[in-house]
Amino acid sequence: MLTENIEKLNKLDSKLSAVFYTQSLLEWDAETIASIGGVEERAIVAGKISEIYFNTFINTDVENLLEELNERKAELDEITKAKVSIYKRKFDNIAKIPVKDYSDYQVLISKSYSAWEKAKNEEDFSIFAPFLEKIIIYQKKFIKLRGKSGHPYNTILDDFEPGITVEILDEFFDKLRDSIVPLVQKVCDKQSKDIDFINQKFDIAKQAEFSEYIIPKLGFDNSRGMMTTSVHPFTLNLSRNDVRITTHFQENNITESIFTTIHETGHAMYEQNISEKYGLSALTTGVSMGIHESQSRLYENNLGRNINFWNFNLPILKHLYEKELKDVSIGKWYAAVNHVKRSLIRIEADEVTYPLHIMVRYEIEKKIFSEDIDVNELPSIWNDLYEEYLGIRPKNDAEGILQDVHWSGGDFGYFPSYALGSAYAAQFEKTMRKKMDIDKDLNNLEMDEIKEWLKENIHKYGSSKMPSEIIKDATGEKFNSDYYIEYLYNKYDN
Amino acid sequence: MLTENIEKLNKLDSKLSAVFYTQSLLEWDAETIASIGGVEERAIVAGKISEIYFNTFINTDVENLLEELNERKAELDEITKAKVSIYKRKFDNIAKIPVKDYSDYQVLISKSYSAWEKAKNEEDFSIFAPFLEKIIIYQKKFIKLRGKSGHPYNTILDDFEPGITVEILDEFFDKLRDSIVPLVQKVCDKQSKDIDFINQKFDIAKQAEFSEYIIPKLGFDNSRGMMTTSVHPFTLNLSRNDVRITTHFQENNITESIFTTIHETGHAMYEQNISEKYGLSALTTGVSMGIHESQSRLYENNLGRNINFWNFNLPILKHLYEKELKDVSIGKWYAAVNHVKRSLIRIEADEVTYPLHIMVRYEIEKKIFSEDIDVNELPSIWNDLYEEYLGIRPKNDAEGILQDVHWSGGDFGYFPSYALGSAYAAQFEKTMRKKMDIDKDLNNLEMDEIKEWLKENIHKYGSSKMPSEIIKDATGEKFNSDYYIEYLYNKYDN
Repeated sequence: MLTENIEKLNKLDSKLSAVFYTQSLLEWDAETIASIGGVEERAIVAGKISEIYFNTFINTDVENLLEELNERKAELDEITKAKVSIYKRKFDNIAKIPVKDYSDYQVLISKSYSAWEKAKNEEDFSIFAPFLEKIIIYQKKFIKLRGKSGHPYNTILDDFEPGITVEILDEFFDKLRDSIVPLVQKVCDKQSKDIDFINQKFDIAKQAEFSEYIIPKLGFDNSRGMMTTSVHPFTLNLSRNDVRITTHFQENNITESIFTTIHETGHAMYEQNISEKYGLSALTTGVSMGIHESQSRLYENNLGRNINFWNFNLPILKHLYEKELKDVSIGKWYAAVNHVKRSLIRIEADEVTYPLHIMVRYEIEKKIFSEDIDVNELPSIWNDLYEEYLGIRPKNDAEGILQDVHWSGGDFGYFPSYALGSAYAAQFEKTMRKKMDIDKDLNNLEMDEIKEWLKENIHKYGSSKMPSEIIKDATGEKFNSDYYIEYLYNKYDN
Repeated sequence: MLTENIEKLNKLDSKLSAVFYTQSLLEWDAETIASIGGVEERAIVAGKISEIYFNTFINTDVENLLEELNERKAELDEITKAKVSIYKRKFDNIAKIPVKDYSDYQVLISKSYSAWEKAKNEEDFSIFAPFLEKIIIYQKKFIKLRGKSGHPYNTILDDFEPGITVEILDEFFDKLRDSIVPLVQKVCDKQSKDIDFINQKFDIAKQAEFSEYIIPKLGFDNSRGMMTTSVHPFTLNLSRNDVRITTHFQENNITESIFTTIHETGHAMYEQNISEKYGLSALTTGVSMGIHESQSRLYENNLGRNINFWNFNLPILKHLYEKELKDVSIGKWYAAVNHVKRSLIRIEADEVTYPLHIMVRYEIEKKIFSEDIDVNELPSIWNDLYEEYLGIRPKNDAEGILQDVHWSGGDFGYFPSYALGSAYAAQFEKTMRKKMDIDKDLNNLEMDEIKEWLKENIHKYGSSKMPSEIIKDATGEKFNSDYYIEYLYNKYDN
């Protein structure tokens, strides 16, 4: 009976993972090469496939299967136990949502991306507003149906970062704000202003060459993934053996593509290094957005903006751009790639102001899910918060509330994980430094030791361990944001 | 009851079409950008999705639904009637195959592509042979299970070209051989040999520029499709609003990419111009491979190798390659792009020898499905037939039996449709010439009249009319291969 049930669970896992694989592929396709003209049919397909996923998963048979297995948890092997946990979580998250709502919502989502894109291009929030309004209505309905106690926003925060609540985030962000706001002021006053060279004209083919050079050096396995371009860079894993990253190139900016590529490579390393023992399974993906961002931001910032990394790589970059980077010393380069600036666009923000961008989004999302807000008021709320936290005000909605894709995909509760990820990264780095000489490794671009530690302590587990367990087991203590503040002060307050 | 059943059929159509859409996308992805490393997981996914397709479709409810609707066919609207026909056909084709076999076969297919690719690259048939053997065993088993009377090969011929049989093809090919073999000899004796300029070095970026220039000129709608590259060019329709073509570029050959692009554009025009009234449906795709090839080959040969087409386009091409094409007159160019040569590679063959390449494959497939053949003997059978029909013998299997991808996908019965397509094209052209001045249109690259006729008489029907009906309604008579022979003699025997 138990053996039979385990067999049933594995079959279900395999089938749902296959359907999810096609959903991921639809998303990949839509965001890279799909025709504008095909949006209607794509939306229908997305709806139907969601329906198939839903109907395969949400039924009494599966409910009973998960219950029965859960009752005999003690007798299960580690992998099965982890599968039961993750599917019970997933089941509880959607079981109470009617299938019609679930699939209508998927259709809405697959259409609203185009609306958001159009709105952003035309700097006109009103094109996106009706979609956003409907998405919020659905999300609120789903939260209510899921029926969890506590702050309504907690329900969706937990989807992206299990265990994280408004209470934890309020404390985290309050502490961050108190230490970052004065730090920003201090850094801005004294830092070098010699950064204009970043914005010369840099041949895009050579930028691509540098990106292609750096990703395998960082540990990316080109035979189990690939890189291409998209308007909004992202990483997508079809399987651990097919992990795709996108980057983007700007002719008048040399750093944008470099750090985007390194960031996405960090995500990709996580996915590629999950243990193969899980096969094609719900366990074979990063466990949470926070842990995922800890990897991308660790690579981008803690490693990629470290001076030793550039001791090795700046000569290579200078070789590509002999004329443009002729007079750029390592000191000048390091200062430029770590320049702190109060700016409007999150993805272009430096490490220090970055959490302030997240706080704006956090405050708005918290408001959306605890009050009745007219979506048309959101742009001015956004602009006011930017003025309050960063001291600058967007001139239009494209550089304001329309800058991020997330809400068009219904991804509320996602943003805080970026800030959490940066904080986790600092805690991981602190631990790693006790075991290895990171600076020396970077100085020689010897990434094996770093890669191995991340793989053994984080990556290989996929979704089989919860974020809090990963942090505890990897660093010996629970999440502690002091390391993040310490990291920022050590690096910027000197 | 009838209304309910129609509703049920539409829901089924929509769901199966959505699943098929994801299968097409998996195929697109595999043949364009997917990682080599991901082949195992892709195969599992392909198997699972096939299982979903099969289980959704092949069950007693659907069988009864189709029966009930079929009994009241007279009361149905045109679209529903066509859907009933097409789904009854599809149902009968797979209903007798056990689901396990069906999905195991899909897994096999999705793996054998890589094996074929490897075999071709390494010029080693033995790498592909075990896969081919298994595919043939499955195919023979399926043919038996489907239980149709007549020659076993007929069952799968009918899958690609409904209504076509070994008896029809034997007659068609006999007649063709009798007229083509002497024609090849005649042309080879007297034609100009001044074609070496084709194989200079031609900058690939400029070749891409010409391809991008020509596809919208031919009528391709760039907002409802796109073009990229792949090793083996093909056209794939996710929907009528997302039709994708691939081409390939060879630096030392100026004509290869041009005619590949025009050929695939012909396929794409068919898909893009299907009436939108069918929505996302099994009706929204070309009805058969023969009709499809009639469109691609009409564009490639009847239009694209017409001298008037080049009166307009050669100056544009010469502008791109001022140095390389300096001394190339229209006469010299026309002779070169219509040069006849006994060669080994089907896709590089000229119009006149092309059907001989098809006959080789036809003879082998007929043999495979009527005798017990050891797959290891196939390469020498292949080589012998090339010697017999074309007077030349492949030096290795890469330029012999491994040249085509089709068998690795289980697509036996497909090849004859290429020859049929060319013959249909000649019959269509003959009719079109009674209604319009094709040469004048081409001379001005005015494609609207041509596009409109093809749309109104062929494209718009999608799969709602059988190939024989399309030919009859469009040309006023049934398929007659004399037009093809007449076309070839008119063009080449002068």
